[in-house]
Amino acid sequence: MKLLIVNPNISESVTALIGAEARRAASPGVELTTLTAALGVAYIETRAEAAVGAFATLNLLAEHYEGHDAAVIAAFGDPGLAAAREMLPIPVVGLTEAALMSAAMLGGRFSIIAISRRIRAWYQETVDMHGLCGRLASIRCLDEVLANIASVQTDKSEQLLALCETAVREDGADVLIIAGAPLAGLARSIADSVPVPLVDGVSSAVRHAESLVALGPRSATAGSYAPPPEKDWTGLPSALGCLIGRK
Amino acid sequence: MKLLIVNPNISESVTALIGAEARRAASPGVELTTLTAALGVAYIETRAEAAVGAFATLNLLAEHYEGHDAAVIAAFGDPGLAAAREMLPIPVVGLTEAALMSAAMLGGRFSIIAISRRIRAWYQETVDMHGLCGRLASIRCLDEVLANIASVQTDKSEQLLALCETAVREDGADVLIIAGAPLAGLARSIADSVPVPLVDGVSSAVRHAESLVALGPRSATAGSYAPPPEKDWTGLPSALGCLIGRK
Amino acid sequence: MKLLIVNPNISESVTALIGAEARRAASPGVELTTLTAALGVAYIETRAEAAVGAFATLNLLAEHYEGHDAAVIAAFGDPGLAAAREMLPIPVVGLTEAALMSAAMLGGRFSIIAISRRIRAWYQETVDMHGLCGRLASIRCLDEVLANIASVQTDKSEQLLALCETAVREDGADVLIIAGAPLAGLARSIADSVPVPLVDGVSSAVRHAESLVALGPRSATAGSYAPPPEKDWTGLPSALGCLIGRK
Amino acid sequence: MKLLIVNPNISESVTALIGAEARRAASPGVELTTLTAALGVAYIETRAEAAVGAFATLNLLAEHYEGHDAAVIAAFGDPGLAAAREMLPIPVVGLTEAALMSAAMLGGRFSIIAISRRIRAWYQETVDMHGLCGRLASIRCLDEVLANIASVQTDKSEQLLALCETAVREDGADVLIIAGAPLAGLARSIADSVPVPLVDGVSSAVRHAESLVALGPRSATAGSYAPPPEKDWTGLPSALGCLIGRK
Amino acid sequence: MKLLIVNPNISESVTALIGAEARRAASPGVELTTLTAALGVAYIETRAEAAVGAFATLNLLAEHYEGHDAAVIAAFGDPGLAAAREMLPIPVVGLTEAALMSAAMLGGRFSIIAISRRIRAWYQETVDMHGLCGRLASIRCLDEVLANIASVQTDKSEQLLALCETAVREDGADVLIIAGAPLAGLARSIADSVPVPLVDGVSSAVRHAESLVALGPRSATAGSYAPPPEKDWTGLPSALGCLIGRK
Amino acid sequence: MKLLIVNPNISESVTALIGAEARRAASPGVELTTLTAALGVAYIETRAEAAVGAFATLNLLAEHYEGHDAAVIAAFGDPGLAAAREMLPIPVVGLTEAALMSAAMLGGRFSIIAISRRIRAWYQETVDMHGLCGRLASIRCLDEVLANIASVQTDKSEQLLALCETAVREDGADVLIIAGAPLAGLARSIADSVPVPLVDGVSSAVRHAESLVALGPRSATAGSYAPPPEKDWTGLPSALGCLIGRK
Repeated sequence: MKLLIVNPNISESVTALIGAEARRAASPGVELTTLTAALGVAYIETRAEAAVGAFATLNLLAEHYEGHDAAVIAAFGDPGLAAAREMLPIPVVGLTEAALMSAAMLGGRFSIIAISRRIRAWYQETVDMHGLCGRLASIRCLDEVLANIASVQTDKSEQLLALCETAVREDGADVLIIAGAPLAGLARSIADSVPVPLVDGVSSAVRHAESLVALGPRSATAGSYAPPPEKDWTGLPSALGCLIGRK
Repeated sequence: MKLLIVNPNISESVTALIGAEARRAASPGVELTTLTAALGVAYIETRAEAAVGAFATLNLLAEHYEGHDAAVIAAFGDPGLAAAREMLPIPVVGLTEAALMSAAMLGGRFSIIAISRRIRAWYQETVDMHGLCGRLASIRCLDEVLANIASVQTDKSEQLLALCETAVREDGADVLIIAGAPLAGLARSIADSVPVPLVDGVSSAVRHAESLVALGPRSATAGSYAPPPEKDWTGLPSALGCLIGRK
Repeated sequence: MKLLIVNPNISESVTALIGAEARRAASPGVELTTLTAALGVAYIETRAEAAVGAFATLNLLAEHYEGHDAAVIAAFGDPGLAAAREMLPIPVVGLTEAALMSAAMLGGRFSIIAISRRIRAWYQETVDMHGLCGRLASIRCLDEVLANIASVQTDKSEQLLALCETAVREDGADVLIIAGAPLAGLARSIADSVPVPLVDGVSSAVRHAESLVALGPRSATAGSYAPPPEKDWTGLPSALGCLIGRK
Repeated sequence: MKLLIVNPNISESVTALIGAEARRAASPGVELTTLTAALGVAYIETRAEAAVGAFATLNLLAEHYEGHDAAVIAAFGDPGLAAAREMLPIPVVGLTEAALMSAAMLGGRFSIIAISRRIRAWYQETVDMHGLCGRLASIRCLDEVLANIASVQTDKSEQLLALCETAVREDGADVLIIAGAPLAGLARSIADSVPVPLVDGVSSAVRHAESLVALGPRSATAGSYAPPPEKDWTGLPSALGCLIGRK
Repeated sequence: MKLLIVNPNISESVTALIGAEARRAASPGVELTTLTAALGVAYIETRAEAAVGAFATLNLLAEHYEGHDAAVIAAFGDPGLAAAREMLPIPVVGLTEAALMSAAMLGGRFSIIAISRRIRAWYQETVDMHGLCGRLASIRCLDEVLANIASVQTDKSEQLLALCETAVREDGADVLIIAGAPLAGLARSIADSVPVPLVDGVSSAVRHAESLVALGPRSATAGSYAPPPEKDWTGLPSALGCLIGRK
Repeated sequence: MKLLIVNPNISESVTALIGAEARRAASPGVELTTLTAALGVAYIETRAEAAVGAFATLNLLAEHYEGHDAAVIAAFGDPGLAAAREMLPIPVVGLTEAALMSAAMLGGRFSIIAISRRIRAWYQETVDMHGLCGRLASIRCLDEVLANIASVQTDKSEQLLALCETAVREDGADVLIIAGAPLAGLARSIADSVPVPLVDGVSSAVRHAESLVALGPRSATAGSYAPPPEKDWTGLPSALGCLIGRK
């Protein structure tokens, strides 16, 4: 099995974090391709950055999906996820979506632990879009300028643990989602210090992508996730244009 | 890895259907234990039957979970699921829940194809309980007396296909869940005749249970899914009483 | 008129509290039968305990309902309520449901005052199940180990009053529900100290059960609350089996 | 016990229907005062008519509530209900509200059977206002000009029965609410012809009003249902002005 | 273009505030008629006061709408809005509604800044009625007795600014609605001191009313906003009676 | 006042339709700039096309917004709207959003009349995103291949009228939104043939954009609609990169 993992951000260092956690999570024999966005920003926190990240992600997916069995969009907020799912003949999973699915199977209500205040609105809207806001206990976030996005796990470890404790004690969370690709893998290292199950988006996405491949559902040819209808297009990279416009 | 699969109904023939589909879905090397409820009814369709099925399921799980890595409650409607999740130190997955998670990762809105009119209210309430009613397009059902629950797949194949087509065309379903243990495996055999992805509860539950084991979340010791607090109990089978009352 | 009141917990002392408040609330001439669960736990706080309590309740109801005009399930959280309503030819009312109905007719939004932190999730889910979460202002709870469940009203009277005040002042409650059978009757004794109407589950359930008897609705023979369809059953006490399996 | 029953419409003939059903429903010894609106329209179907009916109702209640233990606003749609509840020191119950409470205790989802197409929007909004739209299966209505509002029960009996059957069979209703004061009492006469419980607003309101009196909740002096704060007023009948402006 | 602006309260001083802000907001050449309620209270905070204010508003609108192109109901809470919309052949806009529309086009979630604690429940219900509670971040309010409703803007300026800051910082508001006719115009004067867009109800209502006139939609002759059906009426001022009863 | 109107599709003919209706709707003296997407598809119907259209729209807005007072994103579904609102210092309005606001001020529930079956899911999700799904009566659509998107108004006029009638009669719509830029202006020409108010997205957007300019709200510097925080970016056209990455 081959999985294509796309980082919608332009940060190679974050792609490395993602790749490492993906490797730890993947079943033996699963091959991973990891790619970094060619355009966009260092770290998506806003709707504007997500719109750009979605376009970058669709481009990468269109150009590289062939030969893979499934794809993972490796940013919380799942930029371009629904679009990719329409467009590609293979399963596509997003980090938020995958984390929500894991959390939903481990308890009742979950909180999200995030790395910036600004990112909260976007995460909230992503949970709404997946239809699971009724199970969201809270979004708790760091509220400081981050000197280095790649080392936030170690730089802010105490504050992150404190957020976890607050979410359980005050917000009634049964499960915690450690959100954002820069925190990939943190759930493993702090599991013993937090009294509820922790969910990591990257490992969840890898495992759920594997499951979808194994379950082998057919691609839609009807309904709103069938490929976009054939129509004129212009100005797009050829791989993307051919998938969307289909001619 | 060892999975415990409990049929909350008393029908050995349905347990056999479940076991066969579970075997087809499970990863190589995964061992499966399948059990049939010792008390209850032939096929759960109502809230009353589900309440009895939940009790039967909790008894089986309490007595047999040791030595297993995860458990599956193998009836749509997930009788006893939240209770089992509180009570056991291993992941527990239900058929409806697992199918909802698969469907949510394959499209936007899904319909459920069910085997009796009466069962619709219970299924609707189960989807509500999982917080996903916003993504439910419809529940379509057979509306005839079933002569033989174990052969409903072949006896009613045409009607079931017609329900699938209606759900896609009229209800706007992007994905279809083929619901109910007696239909276990049907999704495989009719996939080519339906234009959207089909989801089977048994195979989804097996795969998602495997994923939860692989992701290795810790058990809760806080929150509403921690084990029930220690207290006096009476009149329960000892395995169940010790898990619930904890003394 | 004869009412059957079932305590889904195994605590005779709590049954006595329930019975006393029921007697104070019942109309002259109404006869009350009070029963205590033969199996289960001392006090239901969790989904697992509620599942067991539901089974115990259904057994008692099946065995004893004949000769009564209506039944009351006398634990907050209403274990087994929907199941009993399907199964029995007489009206059945639950404590949470009855309190919600009273509260809804006395103001806009209500809070629930509960006796343990753990019990909150279960109560929240019960309000959701009744479709009234839009009117729930908050669930406020004691957060201490209770030495004696039967004397919690007097042992914790100050803390309970403080919770009431907070719910009104901070949460915007127009009405307060004093929840849990161990608090049966407390609403009467503290009414003068709290500036909004207080609702007691036991007295509400008794009065609403009387009303349903007086209104005389017929039993359903169609819809999802008709008796369960006839089918094979096994392993159940005969009274319960005959009601559920109907043969 | 004395109940004040106010018809927000100007139709004496409908007041008579209401009074007759109220008398049939009331407990022995309960005294009833019935009043008809002094201003407004023959039958409220719209938001504009309801606004006028609310004002008429508040006037009647203000002038006549003294000496009564509770009041009933006897039009579906409950014009002025929340206002009256703030204003009066006695319990006030509306016909829709009371019917919803009865229906909620008799099954899962209910339909409303109404006497005109135009009235549906107002009823829908009333159910929304009570927070129970999640349990509403449908509103089915007559769709013809009514020659005589007072004889609609007999003039349209067949059509009304047909609406009941459709609501059960197609909309999944477990309970039916026969709505509108002109249909007061119909539920009694057609109960044997419909396979689910029928709920009548007038009898429900009378019984629930009796229950609230018996339960004896105190009036609010805090929260949003406390009496309106003291302030200047003008142009109102003195009884109403003194209750609202409190000086 | 001529706009009719009705103050549902009896306070001429507040009408003056409204009129001044309306004049500042209106397009050149738009003529404004401002009227004050002939009956009711000094300032609407409760459901009872709103019911009376609705009646007063409908009377004024019925008597004076002719010759105007649109009408504005100039109290937050929009008393009588839906009724007026049914009744009149010209567009009618309410202050809360207009502010919600402006806020919705300026950001994601908004908070309402209000002048009394008691008023919160009514505002919340108004937002619910407009179907926008999913976008409401909070309602923050002054919590003191107001000596003079007409000078609250200057008397409480510091407290109002503090509420704005809290709504942004703690409640996550993207936009703030400065609510209540007595605060008309405040948004202009404090805009530089608050870091998010501020919305004023009066100016929004004037501008949106102008837009509706310019867009020129036809009046409904079908659906639930068509004029009320012709029927007998009594006891109403003639202008109102003729519009509602239509004969 | 100068408005920038961006067509997210690549069809110049549709831009011409949009421009003509915008001109008819705009106040005297308002100058309009109309632009057509440089990349993307002929007509957006799917999430994938919308993602591409959002990117094209953001590019056009970034490059051309200076010198304008507000911008309009002139495709139903509002591609890139929230992103543009974060990014630009001037108000931005979308066609769906603007139509929803108009419709909400003209009645209770509205239906959307759309030009293809496939487009329904995207429209539904757009209404959900704006938080107004509670007021959506239905989405009715043409269900045929469209030979010429620019002449659909005349080619399908009968079918479009029939959809309008069905939405009013069967779905309970009080207002109809004629959706999709290719239908720009149709509402004007069929107004007399439909018994409820019709809303056009282009004219609504132009008028609401004018109103926002007139109301003069400040730009956010806090909250989730403040400009994106400064950060590294790459691969973007310079105008867009500077607005999003802010360096």
